[in-house]
Amino acid sequence: MIKKITIIGSGNVATQLSLAFKRSNIKIVQIISRNKKDGNKLAKNLNTLYEENIKKLITTDLVIVCVNDDEIKKVIKLMPDIKVVHTSGSTHINVFKNKTEYGVFYPIQSLNKEIEIDFHNIPICIEANNKKFEKQLIKLANLIVNNVISLKSKKRKHLHLSAVIASNFSNFSYLMAKKHLDNNNIDFKLLKPLIIHTANKIINNEPLLMQTGPAKRGDKKIINEHLLMLKDENFKKIYKLLSNSISKEYDK
Amino acid sequence: MIKKITIIGSGNVATQLSLAFKRSNIKIVQIISRNKKDGNKLAKNLNTLYEENIKKLITTDLVIVCVNDDEIKKVIKLMPDIKVVHTSGSTHINVFKNKTEYGVFYPIQSLNKEIEIDFHNIPICIEANNKKFEKQLIKLANLIVNNVISLKSKKRKHLHLSAVIASNFSNFSYLMAKKHLDNNNIDFKLLKPLIIHTANKIINNEPLLMQTGPAKRGDKKIINEHLLMLKDENFKKIYKLLSNSISKEYDK
Repeated sequence: MIKKITIIGSGNVATQLSLAFKRSNIKIVQIISRNKKDGNKLAKNLNTLYEENIKKLITTDLVIVCVNDDEIKKVIKLMPDIKVVHTSGSTHINVFKNKTEYGVFYPIQSLNKEIEIDFHNIPICIEANNKKFEKQLIKLANLIVNNVISLKSKKRKHLHLSAVIASNFSNFSYLMAKKHLDNNNIDFKLLKPLIIHTANKIINNEPLLMQTGPAKRGDKKIINEHLLMLKDENFKKIYKLLSNSISKEYDK
Repeated sequence: MIKKITIIGSGNVATQLSLAFKRSNIKIVQIISRNKKDGNKLAKNLNTLYEENIKKLITTDLVIVCVNDDEIKKVIKLMPDIKVVHTSGSTHINVFKNKTEYGVFYPIQSLNKEIEIDFHNIPICIEANNKKFEKQLIKLANLIVNNVISLKSKKRKHLHLSAVIASNFSNFSYLMAKKHLDNNNIDFKLLKPLIIHTANKIINNEPLLMQTGPAKRGDKKIINEHLLMLKDENFKKIYKLLSNSISKEYDK
């Protein structure tokens, strides 16, 4: 059973994940991070040890690598051969191929260090290079969340791509809306109930049935008016392409 | 004071708005709708009269025209000259120019007939052709929601455009994500906590600071992988344009 954990990283995922472990009384033995300030801060928060140098890694039941995708390989090369997982949605499990026991521990969420989150509802995707280790990882994940699934690298990549579309692109639509409102001295607060309701609707309904607006109705008059009102050339392009695609989706 | 109301229409806005009035004990005297089935159903729900023919409109303190934007003009032509408002975000108040007292009563929300909503939190934008009538409309709106603002047609149009971007485009991003997951036999449920959290984050945070993901980081490797994974040519175009725009926004 996995009882003691080493975390590599001190960013958004490292922070939120290790805080979730702490709340479930799982011991984080050491935080390893090149970022002294954030590493020390997180270690202090967890009441544990901080270490800058990965060669001084303390052997535990599991090392969780929470670093940027393009840093994972470098970190692995410097590590001893102990049980290890990464937390990336888009990095193949084979990145560990020279190790003995390895896997993936991917929380499907866009985590921010500073923003508290109810971790229990986050689904965690597990993958491992052997069944026994996979079971251990599932057991561990079940201690901090209530939705754990096994998912191979290829499917995980498709899930990650979909997460980017659903989350990053929706946030960018909020950003575009806010910029347009700011430019016209209108308070963004007015849109907040609409944004929340639009997201909440898909809990119990198909997004396909929830689409509304001029593009869905094929209302070219309004679409053309809107295009004239948008001053930002990029936003104009996006409005046009998305409206065309929505209209096409509904055969308008 | 406005005590008795006539509603023209039986669609999403007519339904949710008249139910909100009913809950606040404001009398809907008559539902007028060309759609017999929906009109009768709504009138029954409100315990009031249904009428198909607009010429049989009963004079009340206010007529609320809740029909599609391109139907508003036609409906107005057939109406007697009594106090009237429309509920559209994008239709200019001047559409009523031959009437004596007129205005706009625009709830900033994407309403669905079948989906219950906490109406109290919806901001309502008021506009009128005279101050006295404007005050009456503000008073009326305050009976059903707790956020009422005065907004002229030009600004309301900009607000409506921003609502389309924030709501219709975010829902379309959920739709694209779901389609991609369906095509790869992955459960859309896995993304729901992420979608809800992404929306909730903007209640207390700037969308500009909440952006995450490969485009924000300028991670071209992942972006190119994702473009190869997307089979739908339209989704590929959208992914590319949005990623470029996000990267540009963050100087990546």
